[in-house]
Amino acid sequence: MTDSNTLDSLRADLDSLDEELIALLKKRFALVQKAALLKIENGEGAFSKAREQHVLEHVESCARDQGLPATLMRDVMLRILRESYKFAGEDEIIYPKCTKEHSPVVIVGGNGGMGRIFRRYFELSGYEVRAFGSKGWDNAETYLKDARIVIVSVPIDITCEVIKRLSPYLKAQHILCDFTSVKGPVVEAMLKYHKGTVLGLHPMFGPDVKNLVKQVIVSVPARNEEDSAFLIRQFEVWGAKIERCTAEEHDKAMSIIQALRHFSTYSYGHFLYKLNESIGTLYKLSSPIYRLELMMVGRLFAQDPRLYADIIMSSQSNLELIRKYVSALKEDLCTVEHGDIEEFIENFNKTLNYFGDFAHKALSDSGRALAKLQDERE
Amino acid sequence: MTDSNTLDSLRADLDSLDEELIALLKKRFALVQKAALLKIENGEGAFSKAREQHVLEHVESCARDQGLPATLMRDVMLRILRESYKFAGEDEIIYPKCTKEHSPVVIVGGNGGMGRIFRRYFELSGYEVRAFGSKGWDNAETYLKDARIVIVSVPIDITCEVIKRLSPYLKAQHILCDFTSVKGPVVEAMLKYHKGTVLGLHPMFGPDVKNLVKQVIVSVPARNEEDSAFLIRQFEVWGAKIERCTAEEHDKAMSIIQALRHFSTYSYGHFLYKLNESIGTLYKLSSPIYRLELMMVGRLFAQDPRLYADIIMSSQSNLELIRKYVSALKEDLCTVEHGDIEEFIENFNKTLNYFGDFAHKALSDSGRALAKLQDERE
Repeated sequence: MTDSNTLDSLRADLDSLDEELIALLKKRFALVQKAALLKIENGEGAFSKAREQHVLEHVESCARDQGLPATLMRDVMLRILRESYKFAGEDEIIYPKCTKEHSPVVIVGGNGGMGRIFRRYFELSGYEVRAFGSKGWDNAETYLKDARIVIVSVPIDITCEVIKRLSPYLKAQHILCDFTSVKGPVVEAMLKYHKGTVLGLHPMFGPDVKNLVKQVIVSVPARNEEDSAFLIRQFEVWGAKIERCTAEEHDKAMSIIQALRHFSTYSYGHFLYKLNESIGTLYKLSSPIYRLELMMVGRLFAQDPRLYADIIMSSQSNLELIRKYVSALKEDLCTVEHGDIEEFIENFNKTLNYFGDFAHKALSDSGRALAKLQDERE
Repeated sequence: MTDSNTLDSLRADLDSLDEELIALLKKRFALVQKAALLKIENGEGAFSKAREQHVLEHVESCARDQGLPATLMRDVMLRILRESYKFAGEDEIIYPKCTKEHSPVVIVGGNGGMGRIFRRYFELSGYEVRAFGSKGWDNAETYLKDARIVIVSVPIDITCEVIKRLSPYLKAQHILCDFTSVKGPVVEAMLKYHKGTVLGLHPMFGPDVKNLVKQVIVSVPARNEEDSAFLIRQFEVWGAKIERCTAEEHDKAMSIIQALRHFSTYSYGHFLYKLNESIGTLYKLSSPIYRLELMMVGRLFAQDPRLYADIIMSSQSNLELIRKYVSALKEDLCTVEHGDIEEFIENFNKTLNYFGDFAHKALSDSGRALAKLQDERE
């Protein structure tokens, strides 16, 4: 056996090849950096969907030509692109500004997690930002006087109160926005206390987000929509995806996807605590899907309990929904207590019919996330 | 502006660089293929944890040297390695066989999903495999006569019956195994109807698995453990991770991670059906974490209802657990109905304390799976 055919020498070859790979990626990021600068000169956004699609199709087709799995190259390239968007968001890079006006942005609660993210993005786009919290009210009049955009980014339970407190300083030119997770009463308060443009917003991500590319911001335009259109464009330039709906649509959906889901996760975790079965044993004996489900429960408890209490208990309609949910569980318990397999299958099929294509897409999409976790398993 | 500095020319450069990347990966897989063949000659398994660790540490440290994010190279390399293990599992490759015996393996139910996977692995390792289903019983005696390993891989509700039916053909040399998700009664039946070696097994993955690398197989040795040790080694050679426990430990954990969790997911989906809120709207307005939660529910309904009914209703202790769970939910409903934030936070903190470090690890680990889904978002 020649030296080039021993396992050790093959492994050494693999190591040098991996170094070439890293050198190539370094070159790639340098090109991306150059492209990012050019895009700013051209006034283009950080993220181009068409370009991403081209890059992915290109590597998939080249992979197929070379007899490599297209899904591999797609996954690898998506991971590289994620980092590319991050590189384009480094401090020295400035995003194009979607308005010729020079008036400042005021963020009330701008030192909170969400406020800080948007503050940074506005600043990187050449806006002057004035942020103040509970201690800055003495200067509120001065801050707001010549501002154009006024964003309320404070905890949900004080949002309406803060809007009311702002009212003496609100002027016709202001675009008044909020970032809260409930839109009905908040948009109502904004319309009541401000006579100018009102735009409800709900960024659907946490303050730990790395950048805004592909992140959803729900927009609820409530008055003079055209006047705030440049602000929506600005979010899009940062890479965000805008979903426009009414306050009612938003709140109805959030009762389910926030309040109900959080309650159910909280309650499942709380029940595991009561059972007191070792998490280590459960995790060890789990398949990838159970491990992810356990993680989805566990991760809730690593976060702020107050935030979850506020979201769950923020409205009577949330409580009504949770009450209905618990009743529905009792009915389902009856089905399994009676060993009624027929009814179980009938309910199952009705639900499948309701989920429609989403069920199958969910199976394959979540499969890719599970594969990622499986890759990491030690 | 020179040509080399226009966005179009930079993008063309990026495209050629991506082609170099693919060429390099093609070379990498060729080396991996060579290494896989050598490993078989040396009698080594498909997956070496130490080698994986080395490869990851090497790329992470090179990335840091080059000013690239180490996490990027870790993710990219894990994805490449996943494919490498798959390459090593192609049909022409043979795994080392962990026994010198030539006696065949019999798989009862070998044409089902799980049976087929193991059949293929045994065959790729040089075992003769005899698989039969409900129609093969006439030849059962011939199939089993000179076999060494006899695996029962049939639906849970008929497993004990099948074991009983096998009993006239079972001989002292047989290692009798099963693949069912309940171990207590099944292991008991195997001990009753077979006087030789008994090994309960529960592969913790679905029949859609690409390969066995890093997949968990729970092992419940019930008689003559040393006699079946070579079989456990065989699973490890295929890359599986063996978790050894008692039937009681296994069943207690499965009541929670299978029956309870499936019931809770089924019931949540069934409730969404009753609410009849558009899945499209819910999905569109969701953050990455809610999208994943919706997927975890939706994916259940793309699968076999009978399987879930069987798992949930397979034992009285499952029903007892689900009953307790529904009672616990009623208590939690009381807490939120009374707006008792203090109690909610107290329960939350007790649960966090129960989850311990897992909660924080779950937050970061699931964050990586979520980032993968976010990368894919269109």
